[in-house]
Parts: sequence; structure tokens; C-alpha cells
Amino acid sequence: MSSLDWLSHAVTTPDERLLQDAREYQLQLTKPPGSLGRLEDIAVRLSAMQGTKAIKLDKVHITVFAADHGIAEEGVSAFPQVVTTEMIKNFARGGAAISVMAKELGASLEVVDVGSVTPAGDLPGVVDNRVAAGTANMAKQAAMSETQLAEALAVGKAAVQRGIEQGMQLFIAGDMGIANTSAATAIACAILKQDAVTLAGPGTGLDQDGVKHKATVIQSALQRHAADMKNPEDILRCVGGFEIAAMCGAYLYCAQQGVPFIVDGFIASSAALMAVTLQANVRDWLFMAHRSAEPGHKQMVEAIGVEPLLDLGMRLGEGSGAATAVPLLRMAVATHTRMATFAEAGVSEKQ
Amino acid sequence: MSSLDWLSHAVTTPDERLLQDAREYQLQLTKPPGSLGRLEDIAVRLSAMQGTKAIKLDKVHITVFAADHGIAEEGVSAFPQVVTTEMIKNFARGGAAISVMAKELGASLEVVDVGSVTPAGDLPGVVDNRVAAGTANMAKQAAMSETQLAEALAVGKAAVQRGIEQGMQLFIAGDMGIANTSAATAIACAILKQDAVTLAGPGTGLDQDGVKHKATVIQSALQRHAADMKNPEDILRCVGGFEIAAMCGAYLYCAQQGVPFIVDGFIASSAALMAVTLQANVRDWLFMAHRSAEPGHKQMVEAIGVEPLLDLGMRLGEGSGAATAVPLLRMAVATHTRMATFAEAGVSEKQ
Repeated sequence: MSSLDWLSHAVTTPDERLLQDAREYQLQLTKPPGSLGRLEDIAVRLSAMQGTKAIKLDKVHITVFAADHGIAEEGVSAFPQVVTTEMIKNFARGGAAISVMAKELGASLEVVDVGSVTPAGDLPGVVDNRVAAGTANMAKQAAMSETQLAEALAVGKAAVQRGIEQGMQLFIAGDMGIANTSAATAIACAILKQDAVTLAGPGTGLDQDGVKHKATVIQSALQRHAADMKNPEDILRCVGGFEIAAMCGAYLYCAQQGVPFIVDGFIASSAALMAVTLQANVRDWLFMAHRSAEPGHKQMVEAIGVEPLLDLGMRLGEGSGAATAVPLLRMAVATHTRMATFAEAGVSEKQ
Repeated sequence: MSSLDWLSHAVTTPDERLLQDAREYQLQLTKPPGSLGRLEDIAVRLSAMQGTKAIKLDKVHITVFAADHGIAEEGVSAFPQVVTTEMIKNFARGGAAISVMAKELGASLEVVDVGSVTPAGDLPGVVDNRVAAGTANMAKQAAMSETQLAEALAVGKAAVQRGIEQGMQLFIAGDMGIANTSAATAIACAILKQDAVTLAGPGTGLDQDGVKHKATVIQSALQRHAADMKNPEDILRCVGGFEIAAMCGAYLYCAQQGVPFIVDGFIASSAALMAVTLQANVRDWLFMAHRSAEPGHKQMVEAIGVEPLLDLGMRLGEGSGAATAVPLLRMAVATHTRMATFAEAGVSEKQ
């Protein structure tokens, strides 16, 4: 049986000396100091995270966590619930955005079913870790039991463990789950002490009335569970989702094991926000991929406290924003590790 | 002898029907409509530019145009003039940021010396197209003669022609030239009718006093040539640079030949601004890579009228910002051409 004890295990600290060394080394490269902007910060951070000057990001591992949400029966999504399972099949067959992007990056992709209503069946690249056939409807009861919460968190931990065993140098968690912006919004509202109307948005494409209805449903769920949400774990249990809990567990375990990861958009950020709420220095290990077009993302990003790299109006999930940011990290690594120094190139320095 | 006649040859128009087809096709892909944000716009534009559904960006060609500037003798740069030639050697040996980035992208890289003071000698990958040993000091006289202007513009055209003959699907122009932010600033001031103090910035790293001095020098040059700068060509001749003129010629010829290109930062934008001033629909063929950290870039970008893709505080030049944006375009192409449609994947559409 899974327990929550491991959540409080110490997070690793990036190598402070290598951070300083990498900063100084950047000044020796043949370019005006600071002129590669945030690419320099990325390289410096990665050097400290990987504990080496010879940073590598060849092995990027992407796990898409999929699950269903009881709250879907309240009509809070523009798409029917069956799409969760249909998309699991699409991931496996290589037709989804994240499948195409993973291939473009040469990244490994694993799909983990943490709790779809309709199992997709035995498919290559899909791991069946179903905790239950979707969460319960948080508008009526807690989304999951304590046991289910522990199981879902452990699913994320185990997925990262598999990635580590394959030698991954960078981790991305993606999400799939019809109605999961409702769960993500509820988590963010509970942590940031905001009303649902402030953070709820169109998700996959609700109109104005749809967003209004969604906010009302979420607000009512938040009120129902208010007395039970005394700590972060209880927030996740009462209004979370299986895939979000798995992502939170994955991020936390990355930080404990010293593996850098890129946080995707709205859903991933709710999991990252939960992870940094559990242990603040999880943020030492994370890169924020992008600003999602989902309006509530802004406040989540501010609370996580790491500046996003991209702002392209994306709002798909699946880890697609994080995958799109990978080449920026690779450019940072390439320039840091392969550019000539002023001395090597015989280039004159600043006057 | 080169003439300026070709500058007014008609710019190609992207295929309007393919633009519409590509927009409609995006709606069939297995994702909420619009959820890939600007990646969708990129794919749609590229489809119309390349005149095909089967967009390809395997062959990216980068030309770095290098030249020296007479204005350097006024002490407007943080680096000595000899760095232009030292960096040409660094490009050729693979040690510069753009060399590393080109390799990372699998892009071809050519360096064109349009007018360094000290020739780098015979080097692999470096084309000697020197118009003169640097421009004249624009604080004292016109930066170049009419003949030199025509030659520099033609150098850019010829570089693009070589890229086309190699089958390039996307073009990037980079710049190298100590003091070239002064020329770029002067061009932008003349086109946008701004004072130098508004657009001048630190370039490679001037302090506050240095920027003040630089603005004074540029303003005085602008006043000296005010009566002679009656049209865009004369602005380029009086206060431009050989590499900037070559970049302007390159962009214009890309638009005439129907080749998409990514504009880099401050220097490249002064060339792009000049190109869209000469022919407004050059902008149909350009992507703006990023917002440079150079403060005056903002107004140049607004005048060019195409939204930048990245904002990473970069300010190196060499085409480094444009190279960093290439993977975004490739992600756009990959998702557009390889994702499954709702029908193919058997995924339910929006309710």
C-alpha cells in the first residue's frame, strides 16, 4: 500500500559552486557579456542541476498522465468524456500533438492511464495504472479517497523512476483528461485563496455562459470541501484529479532525485503549484515552459515564481508547451558547451 | 556594374487559397480549435508561402554579413574594431554562437565579408565580397557612395541566390560589425522620424555615459545628412552600413523570389524596416524572431508590423535570435503535417 511519507523526503539542492563556475564561464565565451539573455541563465541553472560543466539534454523523457473527472457530468467541458480514452489511443498511434512533438525532439514518450472511465485496452507505449474509473464528482463528494490519492501520487513517482532508469536528462509531464481544467482551477483557488470566477477559463473552448457555469460549479465544490481542505494533500484529495496528483508526485520525485523538468501549461502548473506548496525548493528544479492562453494561468505562474520561456497563446496541454520549449534549453546547452572562449578564438575583449 | 533597378521588382504574393485551406485543415486536427496558438498561424502562413500543404523546413540557410563602420572611430562601441575580423575567423572555425546554433539546427552557414577593414584572408565558408575597407564615418560624410550602396545591396541578393540554388526553404541573415548598432539606430531614426536619444541603446555593452555620447554622435550625423535623405535608398547610403544594406537586399530578394525568412534582432530589424519601407508587402514573407534587449528595438518591431515569437532578453546579433526561433517554426510544421485528424483518429469533436 502507498503512503504519503515520501512526499516530505528532502529535495536535492543544485550545486552552488557549479552555478558560480558556469556564470563565470559564460563571461569567457565569445559574445558580449549577457548577450544571450535567458539562454545563459538556462545553461547556468542546468549546469548546477546536472552537477557538471558538460551539460547534456539528448535524453528527454515525456510522460502523459491521463484520467477522467467526475465533475465532467456537470457539463463543464466543451468535449465529451469519451475523448480522454480516444486521445489515449491517439497518443499511442502517434497522431496527437505531443506524439508528433516527441518524435520531432527525439524524446521518449510514455502514456500512463491513471484513471480513465473506459480503459483503452492493451496498447504499445501505454501503461495501465488506473486508480479508479475516474474521480468522483467533487461537486457532490471528495474527488478521491486517501488511498486513491496516495496511489495516484505514487504513479507519478514510479513514472519518473522509469525515466531515470532509462537515463533521462530532462523530464516533461503532460496531461489528458476531459474536465481537468476544472480540477486544476479548484486546486489553484484553494491554494491561492481565490474565487473560482477569478481563475476559471474556457478550457478546451467553452463560451462565456459555459465559463460562468463552470465557475459556479467549481465555487460550489470549493465551499462544500472548505472545512476538509486544511492542508495541501487534502486539497488534492477533495478537488484534484488522478493525473494532476500523478504529475505532482512526478515533480516532487524529480526534485528529490535531482532531475530537471519543464512545467507545461494550466494543468501542469496546478500540479507544480501543489508541489512547491508541499516543498518550496521544488522550484529549484523546474523550468516554466510558457504562458498559457488560459486566463487563470497568470496567477499560478506568479505563485510558482519561475518566469515562463514562451508566450505563444498555446492552451492544448499534453505537455505540448513544454515540448515546444525543449529546443530553447538545447540551444542554451549547445552554446554553453560548444562556443569558443575569447582566449581560444583570439578575439579581443570589451574595452 | 550594379544598379538599384531590381529593388522595385514585384514582391511575390503568398497563395491566398492555400492560406484558407491550411486554416480549415488546422480545425480538423485532433486538438481544440486554436489550442496550438501561434504555432497554428506559423504553419498556415508557411503553407501559403511555400505554396504547398506539405511544408518543409529541413533546409535552413544562414548568411552572416560582416562589415566595418567608419563611425567606430567616434568611440560608439564597447569593443575595438578589430573584433569584426576576429569574429569572422571565429565564425569560420565554428566557435561563435551562430556557428554552434547552425550546427544544432543542421542549417548551412555562410559568412560574407561585405567590407571589413582588415581582410580575414582565405577561409572556408567565408565569401569575400568586400565593397570597401569599412564605410566612411557618417559623422563626417556619407557612409557610402551610390555605387557602393548598389554593390552592398547586390551582395545580399547574390547570397540569397546561392541559398536558393542549394534548395533553402527558410533564410536567416545575421550581422557582424563593430559599431553597427549606431548605423541601425540612425536608419531607424531617419525612417521613423525619431531623435537618436529615443532609439540609441547600449549595444554590446556601453554604460550610461557611453549611450549618451553615442546618441549625440548619431544625432549629429542625422542632422548633417538631413537634406540628403529624401528617400529610403539615400538613408541607407548616408547613415547605413555595408552589412545592413546587404541584409536589406537579401530580404527584398527573398520576398521577390518567395522565400520565407526570419528577421533577427536590432541590426536585422533596421534592414527589414528599410525593406518594408521600400516595398510594404515584404512583410508577407517575414517572421520576427524575437524582441531584442536593445531598447530601441520595440519601435522598429512595431513599424515592421509583425509580432516577435520570442522574448528572451537576447542582444547578440549574428542571427542568433532567428536561429533560436527556428525550432518553433519546425514544431509548427511538424504538428500541421503529421498530426491525425479527428476522422483519422476516431476522436469525438467539440459538443
